[in-house]
Amino acid sequence: MTEPLRIAIAGLGTVGVGVIEILQKHAPLLASRAGRPMELVAVSARSRSKERSVDLSAYEWEDDPVALARRDDVDLIIEVIGGEDGPAKALIETALESGKQVVTANKALLARHGTELARMADKTGTCLRYEAAVAGGIPIVKALVEGMAANGMTRVMGVMNGTCNYILTEMETTGRDYEPILADAQALGYAEADPEADVGGFDAAQKLSLLSAAAFGTEVDYDGVTIEGIERVTLTDIRYARDMGYRIKLLGVAAATPAGIERRMQPCLVPADSPLGQLEGVSNMVVLEGDFIGQTVYQGPGAGAGPTASAVMADVLDIARGNTPPVFGQRAEMLAAPVAAQAGADAPYYLRLSLADRPGTLARVADALGQAGISIDRMRQTQHESGTAPVLIVTHSAARTALDSALETIANLDVCDEAPVAYRIEPV
Amino acid sequence: MTEPLRIAIAGLGTVGVGVIEILQKHAPLLASRAGRPMELVAVSARSRSKERSVDLSAYEWEDDPVALARRDDVDLIIEVIGGEDGPAKALIETALESGKQVVTANKALLARHGTELARMADKTGTCLRYEAAVAGGIPIVKALVEGMAANGMTRVMGVMNGTCNYILTEMETTGRDYEPILADAQALGYAEADPEADVGGFDAAQKLSLLSAAAFGTEVDYDGVTIEGIERVTLTDIRYARDMGYRIKLLGVAAATPAGIERRMQPCLVPADSPLGQLEGVSNMVVLEGDFIGQTVYQGPGAGAGPTASAVMADVLDIARGNTPPVFGQRAEMLAAPVAAQAGADAPYYLRLSLADRPGTLARVADALGQAGISIDRMRQTQHESGTAPVLIVTHSAARTALDSALETIANLDVCDEAPVAYRIEPV
Repeated sequence: MTEPLRIAIAGLGTVGVGVIEILQKHAPLLASRAGRPMELVAVSARSRSKERSVDLSAYEWEDDPVALARRDDVDLIIEVIGGEDGPAKALIETALESGKQVVTANKALLARHGTELARMADKTGTCLRYEAAVAGGIPIVKALVEGMAANGMTRVMGVMNGTCNYILTEMETTGRDYEPILADAQALGYAEADPEADVGGFDAAQKLSLLSAAAFGTEVDYDGVTIEGIERVTLTDIRYARDMGYRIKLLGVAAATPAGIERRMQPCLVPADSPLGQLEGVSNMVVLEGDFIGQTVYQGPGAGAGPTASAVMADVLDIARGNTPPVFGQRAEMLAAPVAAQAGADAPYYLRLSLADRPGTLARVADALGQAGISIDRMRQTQHESGTAPVLIVTHSAARTALDSALETIANLDVCDEAPVAYRIEPV
Repeated sequence: MTEPLRIAIAGLGTVGVGVIEILQKHAPLLASRAGRPMELVAVSARSRSKERSVDLSAYEWEDDPVALARRDDVDLIIEVIGGEDGPAKALIETALESGKQVVTANKALLARHGTELARMADKTGTCLRYEAAVAGGIPIVKALVEGMAANGMTRVMGVMNGTCNYILTEMETTGRDYEPILADAQALGYAEADPEADVGGFDAAQKLSLLSAAAFGTEVDYDGVTIEGIERVTLTDIRYARDMGYRIKLLGVAAATPAGIERRMQPCLVPADSPLGQLEGVSNMVVLEGDFIGQTVYQGPGAGAGPTASAVMADVLDIARGNTPPVFGQRAEMLAAPVAAQAGADAPYYLRLSLADRPGTLARVADALGQAGISIDRMRQTQHESGTAPVLIVTHSAARTALDSALETIANLDVCDEAPVAYRIEPV
C-alpha cells in the first residue's frame, strides 16, 4: 500500500491549521511511518479570505464542506468544524455514506449521534475515529479501545476539562473566589466568553459519554450522565477539603456496578496525594481500570492547536496503516442499550449546609442524617458573622439514595438558607 | 474476517498462565471486540506435569516450543519463555519465517536482536509486537508508535523498573539503607534472587533501547545506552535531594540532541512535585514528548501476571483486528543507524564526594570545578566522625564533558576516599 492517502479538511480554525502545519512540517516522517504519503487535496472553511498562518494555495477550496465528501479524489475527511448538528453532521454522514474514512474532533456531535454514525460506518465499511474529541492530545481512546481491549473494564474516570481544573487550581493557589478567576481564565483564553459548556460540566460529560460507551460496550448515552458543574464550589469547600487531605476536581466517573453503568460528571473530593489530586492547571488526566491490568493513568494537554492536531493526525496515520477498529470498540450492532445505575456505589460524602443560626438547628440536621442511616465522620462549623452558619460535614460511606433522602428531609426542616452542597469523596 | 485467530503459547510461567486466564474468562468479550474468536490451539513449556492454575486439557502440547511455529493450525505465536537467545529466538525466527505473527514480552531478546527480527518480519510480511516488553501493562509502545505518530519526538523518559523504584521509595520512607531494603524486596518477590539485572539498570535499559528505536526511527542499540545502577545511592543522597525539593529515581532518558540521540539509564534527581518525582512503589511511569503534542505521561503497573498478560493480549487483539504497524514504527530498512550523543544536553548535577578531612581539600575541589568552568549552586558538608568528610555539591547547569574532566582532576588530587558520585538533575 504505497499510494497516497488523499485528505480533505473541513474547518480551518486553530485545529485545522495545526493539522496543516503537521502535514507540511513532517511530510517525509509521516510517509515513512505510514508507509505511504499523506496528500492534502482540499480544504473548506467559512471564510476563504481570512488571514491564516499556513499557505493554502496548493489545496483545492470548497465553500461547502459537504462538497469535500463528494470529491472522487479524497479518501479521508477531517472534520474540525464543530457543532452537534448542521454542516459537521451533514459532512460526516455524506462521507460515511460514500465510503470515505472520517476523523473528527467533535465530541458534541458524537455525544448526540455517535451510535447512529457508528452504525453507518459499520454498514458502509468505513471508519470513524475521534481521538481528538476526548482529552485533547492524550491518546486515550486508543489506550481504552486498543490498549485495554483484553480487560473487562471496571471504571473509567478523569479530569477532562482544563478550564475547570485551571479555575479550581487557581482558587486553591491564590485564595481568590470563583468569579474573578473565571474572568481571568476568559482573559487568558482558557475559558470561552460563554463559559457554560465548560464550567457547567457539559463539555466534559460529552467526553465521558464517549469513553463510557467504548469501555462498557454500550450505545452512547449523553443524557444518561448526571452532570453538575463547578459554579457552586467555594473557597470554603476547597480549604476544608485540603485540610482533610483532599482536592476538589470536576471528576467524570463511569463505572460498572451490579445495577448498571454509573455515569457522573460532578465535583468530587479525591485524595490530594493521588495522581488525580496532584493534577494542576489546564492538564487533563484519565484513569482506566480493568480487571486484569488494574489501574493505569494518562496525563497530558487537554486542548490547544498542537496537541489536538497531533491526536487528529494519529487517527489519520492509523487509517493510513489500515488500523480501523470499531468506533466504540465493538461493532455498533453489538452495543447494548446502557442501563443506568440509579446511584453509584456507596461512598463518603462531603456536605456544606448554610444553616440558620438558631438553637437546635444542628441537632435536627444530625438527626435527619441519622434517621437515613448516615453516620457523621467529622463536622466543622466555620466562623460566621451573619445569621447563617456554614456547617461542613463529612459522612461515613453512605448510599446516594439515603443521602438524597436525608437532604430532602433537611430541606423540609426549613433551616437551610440555600440548597445543600453534596460532593462525593471518590476512592481512587 | 470472522474465522478464528489460532494461537499458540510458548512458556507457561505466570504471564503465560495469565494469558490463558484472559482467554478463558473473556472469550465472548474478546471475540466481540476483535470481530472474530480467539482460539488457543497449542501450548509448550519446560514441564508438562507441573501444577498450574489453569486447565490445559483442551490444548495440544508440544515439548519443543519451536514445533509450535511449524504447526499448520496456528496463526500467531505468543512467546513468553524469556532469554535473549536459545529457544525464544529460535521460536520467533521460525515463526516469522513461516509467516506467523508473533507477540512477545521478551525485552532482552529484542534489545539484542530487535532490528534483525524487524527486518525478518518486514520481509515475510508478518508482524512482531512487544507491548508487554516495556513498562508491563502500560500501553506505551502503542502510545508511542501510534498515538504520537504525527510528532517529531524530542524526548522519551521514564521509570521502567519497579524493583528499583520500590527500593528508592522505601529508603526514603523508612530511612533504612539500601541493603536491608533490597533483602526485603527479595523476600516480597519484588526483586530476583540475583538482583543485578534490576538494580544494575540493565533490565530498564533494555526497555529504553526499544522505546528509543521506535521514537527516533533508529536501529535498536542496547550497547549505546549509558547504564548506571542504583547500588551506590545512599540515604545521604536521598535526604539531601529531598531537602532541595528533588527525588532520586532510576530514570531512563532518550533524547534528540544536535549531536545525536542521547540514551541514559541512570539515577537522576527530578523535582519532587513532578509526576516522575511523585511516583512511588513498584509502579512504572513513562513520559513522551513530541514537537506538536508537548508532554504526555503514562503510569501503571510495570509487572505482574495480570498487567503483563493484558499487554500481551492487547497485541493479539490488534493483530486479530488487522492492526499491524511496523515493529519500530517504520519499516526496518528505514531505521537509521543510531548516532550516539557523546554527552547529553547541559544540566545541573548533584555530586557526592568523600573527601579526606584535611585543611585545603575543599578549596582544591572547588578550584578543580571552577577550572572546568563549572560553578557551584550550593554545597553542604555533612557531619562526620571518621577522617572522611561527605561533601554534597549541586552545580549550575554544566556540560557532562566538563564535569567528567573536573571529576578526573579531582580524582587525581588524591583527596577522595571513593569515586565521586555524580547524578544529573533532569529537567522534567
